[in-house]
Amino acid sequence: MIFDTLIAQIVARQAPICVGLDTAAEYLPHGAQGTAEEQAEAVFAFNKGILDAVCDLIPAVKVQIAYYEPLGAAGIRCFVRTCAYAKQLGLIVIADAKRNDIGATAAQYARAFLTPENGEKTTTSPDGSITGGLLCDLLTVNGYLGSDGILPFLSACKAQDRGIFVLVKTSNPSSGELQDLRLADGRSVYECMGDMVEAWGEESRGAYGYSRVGAVVGATYPEEAKALRRRLLHTFFLIPGYGAQGGNAEMLKNSFAAGGMGGIVNNSRGILCAYKKRGGTYIDAAREAVLEMKADLLSVLGEIHD
Amino acid sequence: MIFDTLIAQIVARQAPICVGLDTAAEYLPHGAQGTAEEQAEAVFAFNKGILDAVCDLIPAVKVQIAYYEPLGAAGIRCFVRTCAYAKQLGLIVIADAKRNDIGATAAQYARAFLTPENGEKTTTSPDGSITGGLLCDLLTVNGYLGSDGILPFLSACKAQDRGIFVLVKTSNPSSGELQDLRLADGRSVYECMGDMVEAWGEESRGAYGYSRVGAVVGATYPEEAKALRRRLLHTFFLIPGYGAQGGNAEMLKNSFAAGGMGGIVNNSRGILCAYKKRGGTYIDAAREAVLEMKADLLSVLGEIHD
Repeated sequence: MIFDTLIAQIVARQAPICVGLDTAAEYLPHGAQGTAEEQAEAVFAFNKGILDAVCDLIPAVKVQIAYYEPLGAAGIRCFVRTCAYAKQLGLIVIADAKRNDIGATAAQYARAFLTPENGEKTTTSPDGSITGGLLCDLLTVNGYLGSDGILPFLSACKAQDRGIFVLVKTSNPSSGELQDLRLADGRSVYECMGDMVEAWGEESRGAYGYSRVGAVVGATYPEEAKALRRRLLHTFFLIPGYGAQGGNAEMLKNSFAAGGMGGIVNNSRGILCAYKKRGGTYIDAAREAVLEMKADLLSVLGEIHD
Repeated sequence: MIFDTLIAQIVARQAPICVGLDTAAEYLPHGAQGTAEEQAEAVFAFNKGILDAVCDLIPAVKVQIAYYEPLGAAGIRCFVRTCAYAKQLGLIVIADAKRNDIGATAAQYARAFLTPENGEKTTTSPDGSITGGLLCDLLTVNGYLGSDGILPFLSACKAQDRGIFVLVKTSNPSSGELQDLRLADGRSVYECMGDMVEAWGEESRGAYGYSRVGAVVGATYPEEAKALRRRLLHTFFLIPGYGAQGGNAEMLKNSFAAGGMGGIVNNSRGILCAYKKRGGTYIDAAREAVLEMKADLLSVLGEIHD
């Protein structure tokens, strides 16, 4: 099961770390100029450098599709190539796309992101370029529409051993405007969403006890994360907000279960732009930043073990 | 202001109707075969036929990007070409993408969908093919992340005279699981989202009193829609769920303000697949289906006027 594979890799590498490829043009040492194709090529080359530099240290990458869509079809091709290259290196690929829609339409998104036999298979052309669907291992989704917006994703996940992360408590400053509101039954909206996530995952628990339906729980809200960690015993957490958004290791200690289990922390800008603080090449700086993040997390989590 | 333009067109054509280009391959009379490029070409040709057939009858089209993403980059190119062709015909283009993310990332989505000077401008190549960004006039978004996930879209809208529709009460069977829950303050979650929509739109009201921030309110929940119509006086409604999903004219009468103002009803399958019921060409059937829908809506709304 995909989350068993992810957890085994986290333990093997002692790194509950996901590098986020939210690759904005301004993160590239020399920017990205020219046509959309040329800009996308520059972004892919940068991503390839990052992936080569850190692939032996981490279990997973998260590719944020919002940074690719402004380049249109060329950006989507770059997203696909980036995901395919990461998979070639043995990494688990999380597509951060926060997709959501009613049943029949959610099924189309599931087909795009989670089904290998989608419209266009990912293939390598004679010139070495990779084209194809948006295929990944894990996909972030938004649960505002309720079960029939989620179940089509879950069907695809069960058929293909893939998984989803549902937004529960997001890392942004205004996440509480809706998510923290108190319901008449005493729960907050995010607790209610968390309970729905546990229910959606109930039939798909793997060897470590976590289901195919994970949750996005921001590092920037440590008290809420602590309560959610205790409440959602079978839900694996994708934890954004470390580094540039203000989350630190101490703050996210309680987002993890015993043995540092049950979560993975994303870092995007802190890795991609590490060279801006450290100097040297972006490749060396990214590797050093991952090693430093690993030491930082392990200093509070201890050895990761089941 | 974009909603003023939309409303003026609705009045001029006496048609609060939006045709949804949720073009699944199985909707095409002969399906779509071959490579992703070939499938995308077939989908575009079908869309072009629909657009040519109905463009003088309606003010707007809604293009559902989920149906294009399974074809990868080729699908995105087809989405872009479809939007560009609809705009050439003078139609207002709604991209139904339900995008959502934290501030910096939402700004990237805004750049992709709402900003003309995005990474790649929409251009026509010597061979007549159109490539470029995902540019549209109006974009659906999901407000689960609160204000800082919405304001980047709104900034782009103000700069470029565009608008958004925020999901408030969706048309799907399970929309109530979260949206209908009662808050401690007595409101439902969807009423709370509706109030946030009114607040986000407060500074951008146009000549007809509606702001740049619209709401998605499903035709399938007439009582909720009626209450929302009375509550959100400055919010224009995008109303899905007519036809295939079970909504009819009588049910959505109360989604409109006086004079049939304040809303537009989407119909996707009922138009695209009209030929399956009516026989004849898909082009003739689509035109007849739009005319029938117009008569159906006007029979309960009366003349549309401000």
